[in-house]
Amino acid sequence: MKTCQVIFQPSGRRGEIPEGKTILEAARILGVGIESVCGGKKSCGKCKIRIDSKNLDRHGIHSLSDHLSPITEEEKKNLTEYDRSQGFRLACAATIRGDVLIFVPEQSRTGNQVVKKDATDKKIHLNPAVRLFTVTLPSPTLDHPLGDFERLSESLAEHFGLHRLEVDYSALLALPGALRQGKWTVTAAVRMEQEILAVFPGAVEEAYGLAIDVGSTTVAGYLCSLRTGRIVGTESFMNPQITFGDDVIARISYVMDNPDGMDKMRGVIIDGLNHLLRTVTGDHDLSPADILEITIVGNTVMHHLLLGIDPRALGFSPFTPAVHRSLDIKARDLGLKANPAANVHFLPIIAGFVGADNVGVLISEEPYRREEMTLIIDVGTNGEMLLGNRERLLSASCATGPALEGAHIRFGMRAAPGAIERIRVDPETFEVSFKIIGEERWRPEFRITGALGICGSGIIDGVAELYRAGVIDPSGRFRTGLATSRILTTDGQPEFVIAWPDETSLAKPITISQQDIRNVQLAKGALYAGAKLLMKKLGIEKLERVVLAGAFGSYIDKTEAMFLGMFPDCEISHVSSVGNAAGDGARIALLNRDKRREAEEMARQVEYLELTLADAFQEEFTSALFIPHMADDFPHLPSIGKP
Amino acid sequence: MKTCQVIFQPSGRRGEIPEGKTILEAARILGVGIESVCGGKKSCGKCKIRIDSKNLDRHGIHSLSDHLSPITEEEKKNLTEYDRSQGFRLACAATIRGDVLIFVPEQSRTGNQVVKKDATDKKIHLNPAVRLFTVTLPSPTLDHPLGDFERLSESLAEHFGLHRLEVDYSALLALPGALRQGKWTVTAAVRMEQEILAVFPGAVEEAYGLAIDVGSTTVAGYLCSLRTGRIVGTESFMNPQITFGDDVIARISYVMDNPDGMDKMRGVIIDGLNHLLRTVTGDHDLSPADILEITIVGNTVMHHLLLGIDPRALGFSPFTPAVHRSLDIKARDLGLKANPAANVHFLPIIAGFVGADNVGVLISEEPYRREEMTLIIDVGTNGEMLLGNRERLLSASCATGPALEGAHIRFGMRAAPGAIERIRVDPETFEVSFKIIGEERWRPEFRITGALGICGSGIIDGVAELYRAGVIDPSGRFRTGLATSRILTTDGQPEFVIAWPDETSLAKPITISQQDIRNVQLAKGALYAGAKLLMKKLGIEKLERVVLAGAFGSYIDKTEAMFLGMFPDCEISHVSSVGNAAGDGARIALLNRDKRREAEEMARQVEYLELTLADAFQEEFTSALFIPHMADDFPHLPSIGKP
Repeated sequence: MKTCQVIFQPSGRRGEIPEGKTILEAARILGVGIESVCGGKKSCGKCKIRIDSKNLDRHGIHSLSDHLSPITEEEKKNLTEYDRSQGFRLACAATIRGDVLIFVPEQSRTGNQVVKKDATDKKIHLNPAVRLFTVTLPSPTLDHPLGDFERLSESLAEHFGLHRLEVDYSALLALPGALRQGKWTVTAAVRMEQEILAVFPGAVEEAYGLAIDVGSTTVAGYLCSLRTGRIVGTESFMNPQITFGDDVIARISYVMDNPDGMDKMRGVIIDGLNHLLRTVTGDHDLSPADILEITIVGNTVMHHLLLGIDPRALGFSPFTPAVHRSLDIKARDLGLKANPAANVHFLPIIAGFVGADNVGVLISEEPYRREEMTLIIDVGTNGEMLLGNRERLLSASCATGPALEGAHIRFGMRAAPGAIERIRVDPETFEVSFKIIGEERWRPEFRITGALGICGSGIIDGVAELYRAGVIDPSGRFRTGLATSRILTTDGQPEFVIAWPDETSLAKPITISQQDIRNVQLAKGALYAGAKLLMKKLGIEKLERVVLAGAFGSYIDKTEAMFLGMFPDCEISHVSSVGNAAGDGARIALLNRDKRREAEEMARQVEYLELTLADAFQEEFTSALFIPHMADDFPHLPSIGKP
Repeated sequence: MKTCQVIFQPSGRRGEIPEGKTILEAARILGVGIESVCGGKKSCGKCKIRIDSKNLDRHGIHSLSDHLSPITEEEKKNLTEYDRSQGFRLACAATIRGDVLIFVPEQSRTGNQVVKKDATDKKIHLNPAVRLFTVTLPSPTLDHPLGDFERLSESLAEHFGLHRLEVDYSALLALPGALRQGKWTVTAAVRMEQEILAVFPGAVEEAYGLAIDVGSTTVAGYLCSLRTGRIVGTESFMNPQITFGDDVIARISYVMDNPDGMDKMRGVIIDGLNHLLRTVTGDHDLSPADILEITIVGNTVMHHLLLGIDPRALGFSPFTPAVHRSLDIKARDLGLKANPAANVHFLPIIAGFVGADNVGVLISEEPYRREEMTLIIDVGTNGEMLLGNRERLLSASCATGPALEGAHIRFGMRAAPGAIERIRVDPETFEVSFKIIGEERWRPEFRITGALGICGSGIIDGVAELYRAGVIDPSGRFRTGLATSRILTTDGQPEFVIAWPDETSLAKPITISQQDIRNVQLAKGALYAGAKLLMKKLGIEKLERVVLAGAFGSYIDKTEAMFLGMFPDCEISHVSSVGNAAGDGARIALLNRDKRREAEEMARQVEYLELTLADAFQEEFTSALFIPHMADDFPHLPSIGKP
């Protein structure tokens, strides 16, 4: 196979490219970013590049036009006469036939390439830790019998300016075979311009990474292309540690009470993550060894248990973690069956109960860049809060329990197909409409499968709606004598039917019980009280912005959340619901290594407030158990029929 | 327990030291080098230090004399009146009672501490990669609930100037337990001022390392104190890969012929090294986890097989290794059961058949610092040679076979107790005297145990002596008609009795056979021919210096080696026999990290000569099979009775 020398300017990247590849393909192989909105379909015209008149001439071909395929009809459409006279071509259309020198103009470069975050307008600057570089080495001779690694190093230095590279042991083991299998053409995965992580025979274009959010209840993984930033696949599973205890305190207790508790809990989560690695890659014809970088967020206890660090000290005052700073650990050392050389980056933690998940929220939401006083609530099995702006940031943690995630709720379930994620109750008729995950439209009009339970966003909707419809009073108690057959009594306790038996797959009704409502009140009361104490500490009376984050079924309905009294009053248009911001943070750190430094710096600056030490907590908590609150005004809530 | 703040100048090292420790002990804990020839017995007076008049005064004690124990009689003997008036004390005698500021004068510092190499005058500058630092941390409080790692980092930065330390994962796992067990006093093992490798509860003074020479036939390990450089223990064993083939070519063939050959050979050597780690530490009440650094030398094939790198490419021209440069790999990644975080440093290699063992010889002998044209022969299962001086260095490798190590010899054995290591044959009577390893004096006068066989140095002596006594002629054939009963005939072939049955533990005589002599001739002929080709390449006629290295029973007798014709003529006083220089090189690299850089640089500069490509090799080899040589003169050999 004939190869051609291709040089890109202004980056200076160069390499041997098989004849017949397009310039766009060559750019990908050599790690040069060229814009391509249409994905190489020759329609968008964004990939305009200029062929430099300096002929490389190695093969003695003097007419430059012979070095590329003839101009196509699509190019004629997308290039002006003037463009063409200046040597412009479309990178996706022109194929390489000889040595070429290519200039990539500013507007065609992807140096500022951004990826949209799901469902938000945030953009992620692409600057991954791991990049691929393809080189063709001279074969060794008796006169120049230089070692395989040294020849690879020299090539990477010459063509890509990568000097003094280290090599991971596993990559070194793979190198002799890869070189010979690839007939001296290999692709090296290089981390941070410092270390060769892996080598693959031949030219490989795509590198993958995995961002993981390890929650106490739910673990979510995002498989991403490190080249484009695209989410290739998403997968979540229930944290298998749940069998050892629902929340972080229960899991610390399990470690204290069982000599092998630590090993067991670490074992099940590592097994779970390895299963995730297999399934999320298998779904896209990849193998776990294709995962070259992993980022992980999680609360401090999940972080310690996953690492195998004894979490005992987190169970007692002063709740000292083993480590705050971010960690970089090889996948093989953790027992994660990704590429053995893959680096696993754990985001830093703020305090014993404000973990790396909150740091994920921090770099995703960036309150430290804003003027407005912002409250960010990350609702998980624990509720963590950040309050502040560019001047100062406070954090706190409240033991909410897992009710707002749908656990400790009679028909609660995690956000999975079949879960009721939206509920509306008509205040006149008490009739219910709902929407389940996996279906597009609301019930009762639209029905395909039966409901299986209620997830976090559903339970928040449900309790808020029961209050708005007057089914429960501000103290959370069921009112009596309402004209509806939806209120049943079981074991002397009232419950409200959300879905009748024929709407479920359970052969029984799905209800919200008095106890469910109590659990939601305890959780939301803790959040509200925590927010009030943070506001007092900062000396502010009003919130200018509220962000609701959490891995719910869908985004929390912000109006319902305010009706429930999850946070103090705020102008509704300044409240936003952002979904799994912790997971977004993991993804951002995966795709942009600069954000890791930002995470490290900001995590150090956030001040932690230990709520359990605040004298006023109990008082605030008691008032906050009411829906929406015993005393506080909510001028921004729409008035409702029967308060 | 009361602790006192101790600061050493001019290093600025400081720390909390338990009351009652001597200043010398404090210096060791804090990593400050103070000379002490008598080992703290108060007799040598080398550990003079000066107490600074600046009182640290934290405990409010204003009289400086109260901060140390009163002056002792031994100190009065070793210190002048003037010394005492200036505040001088002996570090080994003065015990700490309060905060003190100590000045260590130039002559008492061990910055230039040296360790004698066994039986040679070489000195090793001590600068190990791993050092211990003991700190006592403030305990965490709710106001300052900083993570364990961050408190340790802050303390190491404050007291020892160690900033931005990384931490090995295994050290991080051990940290919370070690801190609490040590009541907030821990000793951190820090590598290259960069990474915390391990943490131990309380104050630990001694750090250990292991230097390993992996030969094709014999593996030797040297357990060393990284603080003093002392060899704490030595142990060797036969390379278990020997069951797969005697030499490197046979082992490469085994990999080619057996799909699991690589794994098997790697498995047995790793098992062997793990056994070595257990026994060499166990003999000194240590555990393998106490080994914090390992250096390894070995020929290129041993190097590849130990790493698990396919050695196939080393079996064919152009004999390309996978890697030349030195490697640093965690013990756990290699499967070595030292401290899991221990770094294993593989010295670099020069070429396919001039390996890291030769680089060990190189940094041990340092021919690149000399003016004289030096030939260094490292006799192992392969014979490697270096020839040159500070201007230029050449290397080559000869397939000698293992005869010079005692293998492929009928009664050959490795250098172990019971092996005959020295032989003399009386040219008049043909009577034999010999010496066996483990006994002080020569036989037949001195006899305790029976001989078991003949090791490398013994076989060289034996063949040379048979020639000097006229038992064999220059072509190696037995002469006929000699008046001795020591020549037996077995299967039609003559053999010479070295030890009669009653001198052995074998119930039969130990002999040197015609075939043994042939094998020694083949080996020494290859060495001689190689040396001649290197001399030709450099354009020199005479050797100015010869160094004989190899892991024999004892050092080769240089005169016998020259009688045998192992190398071209040289003034005998300029020939030296240095024992296992490769192992010495591993030990030097273990104790002095600067020599690793030197090894890397010099390995690059040595030019490799492929002898098999040289037309003249066969001709030189044929002439060199004669004893000492068919044609060359040896003006420096003493004349002998019956040549």
